[in-house]
Amino acid sequence: MPYFDAASSAPLHPVARQALQASLDEGWADPARLYREGRRAGLLLDAAREAAAEAVGCRPDELVFTPSGTHAVHAGMSGVLSGRRRVGLGLTVSAVEHSSVLHAAAAHEAATGGAVSEVPVDRYGAVTPDTYAGALREDTALACLQSANHEVGTEQPVAAVAEACRSRGVPLLVDAAQSLGWGPVEGAWSLLTASAHKWGGPAGVGLLAVRKGVRFAPRGPADERESGRSPGFQNIPAIVAAAASLRAVRAEAAAEAVRLRALVDRIRARVPELVPDVEVVGHPEHRLPHLVTFSCLYVDGEALLHELDRADFSVSSGSSCTSSTLTPSHVLRAMGVLSEGNVRISLPAGTPEAAVDRFLEVLPGVVSGVREKLGAPAGSGGAGTVAGTDGVGAPLVVDALGRRCPIPVIELAKVFGEVPVGGTVTVLSDDEAARLDIPAWCEMRGQEYVGEQPADHGVAYVVRRVS
Amino acid sequence: MPYFDAASSAPLHPVARQALQASLDEGWADPARLYREGRRAGLLLDAAREAAAEAVGCRPDELVFTPSGTHAVHAGMSGVLSGRRRVGLGLTVSAVEHSSVLHAAAAHEAATGGAVSEVPVDRYGAVTPDTYAGALREDTALACLQSANHEVGTEQPVAAVAEACRSRGVPLLVDAAQSLGWGPVEGAWSLLTASAHKWGGPAGVGLLAVRKGVRFAPRGPADERESGRSPGFQNIPAIVAAAASLRAVRAEAAAEAVRLRALVDRIRARVPELVPDVEVVGHPEHRLPHLVTFSCLYVDGEALLHELDRADFSVSSGSSCTSSTLTPSHVLRAMGVLSEGNVRISLPAGTPEAAVDRFLEVLPGVVSGVREKLGAPAGSGGAGTVAGTDGVGAPLVVDALGRRCPIPVIELAKVFGEVPVGGTVTVLSDDEAARLDIPAWCEMRGQEYVGEQPADHGVAYVVRRVS
Repeated sequence: MPYFDAASSAPLHPVARQALQASLDEGWADPARLYREGRRAGLLLDAAREAAAEAVGCRPDELVFTPSGTHAVHAGMSGVLSGRRRVGLGLTVSAVEHSSVLHAAAAHEAATGGAVSEVPVDRYGAVTPDTYAGALREDTALACLQSANHEVGTEQPVAAVAEACRSRGVPLLVDAAQSLGWGPVEGAWSLLTASAHKWGGPAGVGLLAVRKGVRFAPRGPADERESGRSPGFQNIPAIVAAAASLRAVRAEAAAEAVRLRALVDRIRARVPELVPDVEVVGHPEHRLPHLVTFSCLYVDGEALLHELDRADFSVSSGSSCTSSTLTPSHVLRAMGVLSEGNVRISLPAGTPEAAVDRFLEVLPGVVSGVREKLGAPAGSGGAGTVAGTDGVGAPLVVDALGRRCPIPVIELAKVFGEVPVGGTVTVLSDDEAARLDIPAWCEMRGQEYVGEQPADHGVAYVVRRVS
Repeated sequence: MPYFDAASSAPLHPVARQALQASLDEGWADPARLYREGRRAGLLLDAAREAAAEAVGCRPDELVFTPSGTHAVHAGMSGVLSGRRRVGLGLTVSAVEHSSVLHAAAAHEAATGGAVSEVPVDRYGAVTPDTYAGALREDTALACLQSANHEVGTEQPVAAVAEACRSRGVPLLVDAAQSLGWGPVEGAWSLLTASAHKWGGPAGVGLLAVRKGVRFAPRGPADERESGRSPGFQNIPAIVAAAASLRAVRAEAAAEAVRLRALVDRIRARVPELVPDVEVVGHPEHRLPHLVTFSCLYVDGEALLHELDRADFSVSSGSSCTSSTLTPSHVLRAMGVLSEGNVRISLPAGTPEAAVDRFLEVLPGVVSGVREKLGAPAGSGGAGTVAGTDGVGAPLVVDALGRRCPIPVIELAKVFGEVPVGGTVTVLSDDEAARLDIPAWCEMRGQEYVGEQPADHGVAYVVRRVS
């Protein structure tokens, strides 16, 4: 039963399980106490901190444990924003950060009125160092950039952005949740956050590293634990398991990365061959070794996930934080790529080749089944199946109001054959996804996306047939 | 090796261990995902929530899991203070709350300027419902009261205070960290918080119950987990273990409470007989079954703990949050009782009678050893050993500047025999503990504490010999 969603949460690594069980007897007491049980717990905590710091590439006294990666991000961001308040309230983030970063940015904006600048990304989901540097201002207190994107796997130019930040005196927080298991983050970052359950450690453990010299003032109520940066009683057995498994995962990382990269390459190459009308998104080379994302035209993402689950494949669609909403993932939107029928595959360490082969066998039937149910154009569908006509007729209007993704695009494709070359078709839609998917359809089909204009109900998206 | 500090953290209950191990295979995936692994994790989480809610006495949808009791307190307090901002910024707490409550109160005061009223306690550490009710004002947004005190075990009149709050429309948050394993909290509370590692569950799990109808607006960045009240990926195996062990501990609670209460009664009765100059603090009847606290004159708490640890007894002194500082515990200070040589004993479930007997054998020698090293007055010491003289001589001054607890009290006791009945002695001290311990000494010795006055250095504490 192949689980292909390691980027959400990885199954517990055997070393994590072993370390957890071994430390249940010694790790339950309060490490701040001076008696025997407390000293033992304290020793475990110290050793875990040293191991984790070594893997991160920082000093043990620069690293604290938090209850999750989300807490690490929230604490790291608010600590710098408070500590550098005299510099200003400016905050710079990439447009494709994890929702925990964007939520903290929104909370900062709401609470202080500080301006948040979002750095745009290219079609692969990457920022460029120059664009990022251009977003830094005099009053920028903090900059945030993920090491690699959680939805499409694209690696960010962290070292170059860190250098740009350093030269302007702005601390850079790197959210390394998706990459820390694969290796340390290079470059002169100032803060780093991560989450143990992403590399096969237990849930309940995040890491926050803050380099010496970074002005940091914890916000909100604190206590004396974890250098005053993460309040609450530490879960030491989980922390021990997190550190032990990080070390174990790192020992296997180089070889496993090569192996999984080959499997992902196979998916990247084969899926567009096996399934018509697919767009593979994310950078083809500068990417996480285990993660690949693609979108399928004329497919409802939830239905696709459901059918894949029935076929025993567990995958995700965009970010967990948006999969239950009606809006497409903010990452895909920022990239300007097709969002419908989006599938993210992230292979856990140890995924056998046969599981990937089986996925490639199953996928075409699953996609065509979903398309059939939706009444999508068959084959490579759309414009190609109808003979073009010359001359410009009356403009065609497709009313897709009240219909959800992927119906507006399906309806567009269905009528497109009737549009003469040079003529336009207007799609009326009140579905947020249409704003992303209609231009993406035009790009995939080589047709011209004219633009959108307000309509009595919803929005009118105009497409011109050029071939 | 008897561990007598269950109030800090209890060893893992066998049921918690079992449940933890059993759920490691099923509880690692994201419960928000719709695929098989996610659904399984979600089912575990739902079942744990139902079990915990039943033990708390609330609806499952009123209960969220947090990463610790501290997080539950912080989230609960800030949520109500934000949600009821239109009512006002007033916050009422007892003077003997856990530091997590007091830290959140201080953060509230610092961030918003809202006034915090501290309700005083009696010599047993309890508030009275009338005094508490009198502290509620028009602009009181939230009231907090622990179910039982963590340092001295005294139970608070929660049901009466809850009624007083209810009649004034003020929600009451009950910190039930120390008592939830023994039973549900009675009365019409509005919010309740607790911490699993206090009842033998794993660390990393707190509970926050918020009754329907309480205005609640989570502060700071949130996500979609735990009803938006506790962000970050849930640690489901730990949550399952917490709920299972709460149920198991409750099944044993009635019988174990009777057994431990008898052991604690024995300590309460025997310690003052076996060790001279001891004050047992906390309510003799309205108290937690497993906890007893006493203070020993002329004894340094840290030295006492160290010697008890050498004799294989793990106990604590006051709150963990103050044991490493130079100031006496805020609880003992609020009670106005002796703080020097303070020992808290909290028996974990299953503590054998023989361990308590052995403690009572060991304690007298340990205390007299510490006293001897400090040069404390022997036997019942102090005034009793010197014949009183009539008439008032020149006022005696003891310079204890720069000397830490318990030295100022020891120096007072040493010279007290030279003071004629009716005469005074002045102790100069710059140690915070003297403010508490010199009046406490007077009470124990039946002498008159005249008062304090500022001095060139430190404070002058004046004592009159009356017998």
